[in-house]
Amino acid sequence: MKNFFKVVDIEDVWDRRSAFPVVDQETLPLASTVGRILAEAVLADLDIPGFARSTMDGYALQGATTFGATESNPGYLTVVGSVAMGEKPDLRVGPGEAVRIATGGMLPPGADAVIMIEHTEVLDDTTIELYKSVAPGQHVVAQGEDIARGNALLAGGQPVRPQEAGLLAALGCETVRVFRKPRIGIISTGDEVVPVTDVPGPGQIRDVNSTTLSAMTIAAGGQPRLYGIVQDSLALLKTTCARALAENDMILVSGGSSVGMRDFTIEAFEAQEDAHIMVHGVSISPGKPTILARSGTKPMWGIPGHVTSAMVVFHVLVQPFIAHLGGLDDRFRRIFTIPCRLTRNLPSAQGRVDFVRVRVVPRDGVLYAEPVLGKSGLIHTMVKADGLVRIAAPVEGLDKGDAVSVELFKI
Amino acid sequence: MKNFFKVVDIEDVWDRRSAFPVVDQETLPLASTVGRILAEAVLADLDIPGFARSTMDGYALQGATTFGATESNPGYLTVVGSVAMGEKPDLRVGPGEAVRIATGGMLPPGADAVIMIEHTEVLDDTTIELYKSVAPGQHVVAQGEDIARGNALLAGGQPVRPQEAGLLAALGCETVRVFRKPRIGIISTGDEVVPVTDVPGPGQIRDVNSTTLSAMTIAAGGQPRLYGIVQDSLALLKTTCARALAENDMILVSGGSSVGMRDFTIEAFEAQEDAHIMVHGVSISPGKPTILARSGTKPMWGIPGHVTSAMVVFHVLVQPFIAHLGGLDDRFRRIFTIPCRLTRNLPSAQGRVDFVRVRVVPRDGVLYAEPVLGKSGLIHTMVKADGLVRIAAPVEGLDKGDAVSVELFKI
Repeated sequence: MKNFFKVVDIEDVWDRRSAFPVVDQETLPLASTVGRILAEAVLADLDIPGFARSTMDGYALQGATTFGATESNPGYLTVVGSVAMGEKPDLRVGPGEAVRIATGGMLPPGADAVIMIEHTEVLDDTTIELYKSVAPGQHVVAQGEDIARGNALLAGGQPVRPQEAGLLAALGCETVRVFRKPRIGIISTGDEVVPVTDVPGPGQIRDVNSTTLSAMTIAAGGQPRLYGIVQDSLALLKTTCARALAENDMILVSGGSSVGMRDFTIEAFEAQEDAHIMVHGVSISPGKPTILARSGTKPMWGIPGHVTSAMVVFHVLVQPFIAHLGGLDDRFRRIFTIPCRLTRNLPSAQGRVDFVRVRVVPRDGVLYAEPVLGKSGLIHTMVKADGLVRIAAPVEGLDKGDAVSVELFKI
Repeated sequence: MKNFFKVVDIEDVWDRRSAFPVVDQETLPLASTVGRILAEAVLADLDIPGFARSTMDGYALQGATTFGATESNPGYLTVVGSVAMGEKPDLRVGPGEAVRIATGGMLPPGADAVIMIEHTEVLDDTTIELYKSVAPGQHVVAQGEDIARGNALLAGGQPVRPQEAGLLAALGCETVRVFRKPRIGIISTGDEVVPVTDVPGPGQIRDVNSTTLSAMTIAAGGQPRLYGIVQDSLALLKTTCARALAENDMILVSGGSSVGMRDFTIEAFEAQEDAHIMVHGVSISPGKPTILARSGTKPMWGIPGHVTSAMVVFHVLVQPFIAHLGGLDDRFRRIFTIPCRLTRNLPSAQGRVDFVRVRVVPRDGVLYAEPVLGKSGLIHTMVKADGLVRIAAPVEGLDKGDAVSVELFKI
């Protein structure tokens, strides 16, 4: 009767990811790859830049020519021409000579540096005065200094941010091989749950989880597909899970995962093809009754129905799984937390990891983590929160003023 | 000849935002509003939950009935029925009585608390034993405890994250009034710039800024529209700017903004309808030659052509402007930085704010900011970086080990 869970730690759940292969790949136009994960390393097939380039408006010259020039003892150079932008200069710069050049212009042969226009004065059509010396190489980007041909600056499993997209543009990649977005089937359960479009009767509530979990899936790099609300019917839940598994890379069932009268999720999962229950119960709060199972190589998650518990479990466990399925290499997981001071004492049970919703409040140059009070079923506590503070399992509680790290919510 | 800029501070540029009105509004289906900004406050037109709800699987009862129950001195209650999920219970709980209830079930009249199933033992069909007392209100969410009818929990100007979308779902908002995405026209300039699809000849480079600035625009909540590369022709730049202004809420011209031989951006901006140059030169590095102008109530930005400078200026100045145009209320700007220790000395000129690209490296429980070396034209320095360290204007430089704050890049 009292079927208690055999709870496992967060790390144990996370380790199960190796059972699940990453999704397949697709080739997309460059502009559509931002936010995606590269499927393969990208090799530079040319030097960038392809020529020595000026980084300033000024004059290309031989640095050695300028040595000793100062405000009180200026140097003088003969201007022998101009570099046209986007063209190969056809003149050569000798000692004592200078060539007008704009930012991005190609250094003419003989020149090894650029003096900024602000450090010169035009005396006549062919003579400039300089107030400063420049070292060879100054205000110049050498050929291949950004990326040398043959270098692999981007690795498979690396996310494409605007700068990686820029690098791919520089390399002329019109299309890019990336992992496709993992497809996530989302199912809400519960006799008391009605669609957002309905007016809830007595004892009923609207389906919030389909909306929040779908939004979080998108933020995690996945592509959600909604299967609506399954009333507490085992047969219906089995067939809906089967359909969602066939159409997705992972399924996410919220509600019905606690040990109770209507605990159909486990049974529905067990009924799937090549099914195996991997985890039933995680030592976290909220979120203890979480289920991780698999059907073949596809993960099935059973997460709590309470909206806040569901969001915490998603943040802590489901989100990194989606990233894993989506091809993100662990070494590119760049998640940083915000160190804060706690504004009040926080009790916590030993032996489980507690996640406390907090608001980050700057005061006198210090960031404070202000716990948002309220039961875990209350969505307004999530609306007021910026992120979560993790209280480690061996800790019995935290004191006001303690240093804590806040994991910010996405978006 | 030496037309030096009258540089202004970042704060002065930011203050100019009041000259620009926010974009207009649109009504979207709830699921499409995540990442958008609410155009108006949302009032709760019902209590959430609409009834007192159990937060546990167990028995609904009168808390007072359980007082004194312990492991060694258990209490006994008569089970008088069950609550069906999603229905209004038709029975009443008196003293000494209990009613089976699942998580989310509606509390029957007379009950004020729920005891968890784990703290009870079934003795026979109508009797349970309890090992723990529960206080009135325990494991129950009261009617309206999450959101009370008439409360405005969401304000105009507030971003919609997954949890705000969840709250809107709970309130039955099938559609939501939000600000539309600001449309940003993006123009690259430079005779040396060729499309990504071309193989650059001597002195030429591919157009990287269209890709990076467009990706950053999307991450900032805007909708980019590309106008390609305008060769350094004043007439063409004027007409392209005019077209982009007509079709967008803001335009962004990269390249050609420094004081030099081909400085057409200022002239092209001045030629637009009701044009006014607001800023020419900002005391930041990189990014000093930045231009902010307006045509009527639409901002025109001239930003450097160097990809890294362009990205830094976008991050520091353009991105918050897009958020402003997009309706984000200042009090909802929640940007947090990551405190780190610097791994090496950083020189900096006094009187300007320096932005240094850094990689965040965790070592022995401490986060270090490791400056990425390289000239500002080099995109690989952005690829290696997680964010920027801001060296304030009055500071001459920072020392190894100094505490710094890292502003993370988006995405």
